[in-house]
Amino acid sequence: MTQREKIYLFDTTLRDGQQTPGIDFSVEDKIAIAKLLDAFGFDYVEGGYPGANPTDTKFFERNRLQNADFVAFGMTKRAGVSASNDPGLSALLQSNSDAVCFVAKSWDYHVDVALGISNEENLECIAASVEATVSAGKEAMVDCEHFFDGYKANPDYALACARTAFEAGARWVVLCDTNGGSQPDEVSRIVSAVIEAGIPGERLGIHAHNDTGQAVANSLAAVDAGVRQIQGTLNGIGERCGNANLVTLVPTLVLKTVWNSRFETAIDEEKLKGLTRLSHAFDELLNRSPEPQAPYVGVSSFATKAGIHASALLKDPQTYEHIPPEAVGNKRKVMVSDQGGKSNFINELQQRGIEVSKDNPRLDRLISIVKEHEAQGYAYEAADASFELLARRTLGRVPEFFRVDSFRVMVERRFDANGNLKTVSEAIVKVEIDGETTMSVAEGHGPVNALDIALRKDLGKYQAEIEDLELTDYKVRILNGGTEAITRVLIESRDQTGKRWWTVGVSDNIIDASFQALMDSVTYKLMMVRKD
Amino acid sequence: MTQREKIYLFDTTLRDGQQTPGIDFSVEDKIAIAKLLDAFGFDYVEGGYPGANPTDTKFFERNRLQNADFVAFGMTKRAGVSASNDPGLSALLQSNSDAVCFVAKSWDYHVDVALGISNEENLECIAASVEATVSAGKEAMVDCEHFFDGYKANPDYALACARTAFEAGARWVVLCDTNGGSQPDEVSRIVSAVIEAGIPGERLGIHAHNDTGQAVANSLAAVDAGVRQIQGTLNGIGERCGNANLVTLVPTLVLKTVWNSRFETAIDEEKLKGLTRLSHAFDELLNRSPEPQAPYVGVSSFATKAGIHASALLKDPQTYEHIPPEAVGNKRKVMVSDQGGKSNFINELQQRGIEVSKDNPRLDRLISIVKEHEAQGYAYEAADASFELLARRTLGRVPEFFRVDSFRVMVERRFDANGNLKTVSEAIVKVEIDGETTMSVAEGHGPVNALDIALRKDLGKYQAEIEDLELTDYKVRILNGGTEAITRVLIESRDQTGKRWWTVGVSDNIIDASFQALMDSVTYKLMMVRKD
Repeated sequence: MTQREKIYLFDTTLRDGQQTPGIDFSVEDKIAIAKLLDAFGFDYVEGGYPGANPTDTKFFERNRLQNADFVAFGMTKRAGVSASNDPGLSALLQSNSDAVCFVAKSWDYHVDVALGISNEENLECIAASVEATVSAGKEAMVDCEHFFDGYKANPDYALACARTAFEAGARWVVLCDTNGGSQPDEVSRIVSAVIEAGIPGERLGIHAHNDTGQAVANSLAAVDAGVRQIQGTLNGIGERCGNANLVTLVPTLVLKTVWNSRFETAIDEEKLKGLTRLSHAFDELLNRSPEPQAPYVGVSSFATKAGIHASALLKDPQTYEHIPPEAVGNKRKVMVSDQGGKSNFINELQQRGIEVSKDNPRLDRLISIVKEHEAQGYAYEAADASFELLARRTLGRVPEFFRVDSFRVMVERRFDANGNLKTVSEAIVKVEIDGETTMSVAEGHGPVNALDIALRKDLGKYQAEIEDLELTDYKVRILNGGTEAITRVLIESRDQTGKRWWTVGVSDNIIDASFQALMDSVTYKLMMVRKD
Repeated sequence: MTQREKIYLFDTTLRDGQQTPGIDFSVEDKIAIAKLLDAFGFDYVEGGYPGANPTDTKFFERNRLQNADFVAFGMTKRAGVSASNDPGLSALLQSNSDAVCFVAKSWDYHVDVALGISNEENLECIAASVEATVSAGKEAMVDCEHFFDGYKANPDYALACARTAFEAGARWVVLCDTNGGSQPDEVSRIVSAVIEAGIPGERLGIHAHNDTGQAVANSLAAVDAGVRQIQGTLNGIGERCGNANLVTLVPTLVLKTVWNSRFETAIDEEKLKGLTRLSHAFDELLNRSPEPQAPYVGVSSFATKAGIHASALLKDPQTYEHIPPEAVGNKRKVMVSDQGGKSNFINELQQRGIEVSKDNPRLDRLISIVKEHEAQGYAYEAADASFELLARRTLGRVPEFFRVDSFRVMVERRFDANGNLKTVSEAIVKVEIDGETTMSVAEGHGPVNALDIALRKDLGKYQAEIEDLELTDYKVRILNGGTEAITRVLIESRDQTGKRWWTVGVSDNIIDASFQALMDSVTYKLMMVRKD
């Protein structure tokens, strides 16, 4: 392979990502996220704006990184004061960062309206701030805010801002599509113009936003046109529609021939295998459920349910996948569904250790039961445990561990003695095990919680096996609105081994549907114990 | 403006969107979604694969569209049988569609491995299927599956497939990036090659997937290179990482100068104002919460956090927004000060005929109550009636028409005399009106239905006013999974005047939450009667 140029990866999750509506990092959050970013191997990690708020000031009390360069973000010095007399600038220079990234207006309109200073003053602020940073022994970068819109309005001034930063000694001059509306061709055209104007591509970066869903494409168009640094965030968080998603950009650069034949990054193929873990770990920290369809790292990103594809997919996955899922630490998934063909089922069953031959009549029976159930509203692709249970029951034999003769749930709301509204939910479950009947009663938050507690309160000889079972999620969907509504309930369970499984129930009665899903969950757990 | 070329918009939400893991449309779903798509104004709506499964077969029993062309999807005829003797093909031709879109392999490797037929046979199947469709009086299209990967492997054969479809009379030859891994430059290069090979751009379409986060960019690159039809889905649903997102593509084509100076679509600037509503209505049908950061239509897409931008944004929004939010029916959201919030509230209230002055202390109280409630999980955006009720209660006075002293709900499941499982739901409600207490009891499908019937069974002097009240939809969402789960219930009601309204309830108890929403609905109805 010929000599490849390096693309520097700049993560601004902790700075621009902080602008995401609904996201507010604590110092502890930032420390934890910085560890993830540093370990993964980005070149630069921007931590925030020391001096602007207590969190960021505290975060910059120490250099939080082992490998990556620790970047402080901030404004250029104010006009009219010298660099040495600007408290904001001093805070940046005194912070424990390796580099400072300044935001500088490069659209003359904003210099006037937002800053209220002259174009010349703005250039002077850029130059002085960069010089002060360099002489303080830190690397200097300049985010040219609104660069692309600014260039369209006044190319000469936009270029003057970039050139000033470059000539003052900025390691990186970053062209920002702050409003996120630029199209790839515009980005490519304007980047080329900047390089022609004398700023070499190896000193240029791109900062793109996703307002037209093209932050990734815009970043790659800029790289193609010559820039050598990309700014982005984990999972594309950021202001409005978010920033360029590094979790999408990095594998594209590393794995796609059109890119890896010309460029290399700090993330090699080995490190890339940690990508899915990184993305999901970040979501965990944010307490968000990962986007199932996220490029490369989504749980559905290598999932197939189409019958016509699935059969061929099994013959030769490569030709149906743009990359091998393992390359990014993800997994292939072939799902059962209304549309699934026989080969889907056989594959699904194999993955669960159930061997069955194509011409086994019970397989046809299973398929027709699944289709019938799915027509009623069951969603087995979202309830793997219920599917496996149904399959084992239909194909082989699953013992009926216990039998629920009856249950009763009561929800009562009234004013208590002190006149406060009080709602009590109580459930009674009558279970039969080996001909012996036990009744259990429990209260809970709401009827389903009460039912769950009552059902698992005394399963006799099985009790020990389900002690560590825990409900982690509960989803309800009404399948056809109005009074004839059919309710589908999905329940996620977990045990101490960390294993998670989904079960499903369907009925015109939400309690009934919930109870089916609860029963499946408990039975699945008991079955697993015997499988292992 | 010079003569602009038309870009045809082809929606495959109901076909390729059906491949989305976790999505399984019922016939009712498909009918409702087809209405949305048809009303919005797409050129083509692909409904599914008649003959492949009961749902699609039933869906194609009638032409479900008023304006758009109704497209049936399916495979080309099998090799070795004549078009007239292929049951699959007949099902397509006999379906009530205006057009048929065939999927055809264009990668020789797949012709061999997946179909197990010769390259020649495959071409013959394409030609015969297209010809049969045309002579059946339907428009024919061919999705060239794996076209871009196929072209890289064997350009001559990929071109032969496209040319065969074109020469056989296909209105559209659609180039599919089935695995979704192609990069914009490759798409552009290969589309140009196809046009040079003699297939005019006005007969070419693009079908892109989002596996590298560039489905939108790839589609636009193809348009730039000459194709005139774009296939995509609502909100980008689809197999794996999804299809090209029409909700992102359309506004970009309509609003961005680089595109609207050269092209026009069936969606004009007026229709475009319905985009946000369309996108959110679709999510509601799927019972998904809309993606807050979705380009153009997300609730955060025009939101700015308190910070360096916000203050300047207020001075002149245009220069901080790539488009005016109203253009796509979205709203600006500045999370700066209570001032910003206040004017929003005054707006919201005026829209409901409630006048209140900026310095009315009760307004501050309403704002803090709403913020507190929304922090608890109430979604007033989706529950206009509950919001209006809360506002009128806080600002003016809404009579307490009736008071519910207590309710009790019982759900019992047991085997009846004949040994059949039977579930009964019964509710008892104790209501006080003008000091007079009445008790009502009712059975229903499930606890909520029973509660609803009991509550509205006897409201004394108000009974006549609520006779025509009817519940039309019921949605449940768990806000934070696990045992600490909070449940949000949204209820849609309707009366004989055709007016519809949404109410909301939140509690850790689903019955409680449902009851709050029921109460709000009834009270809102009584209030409306007095308002008019």
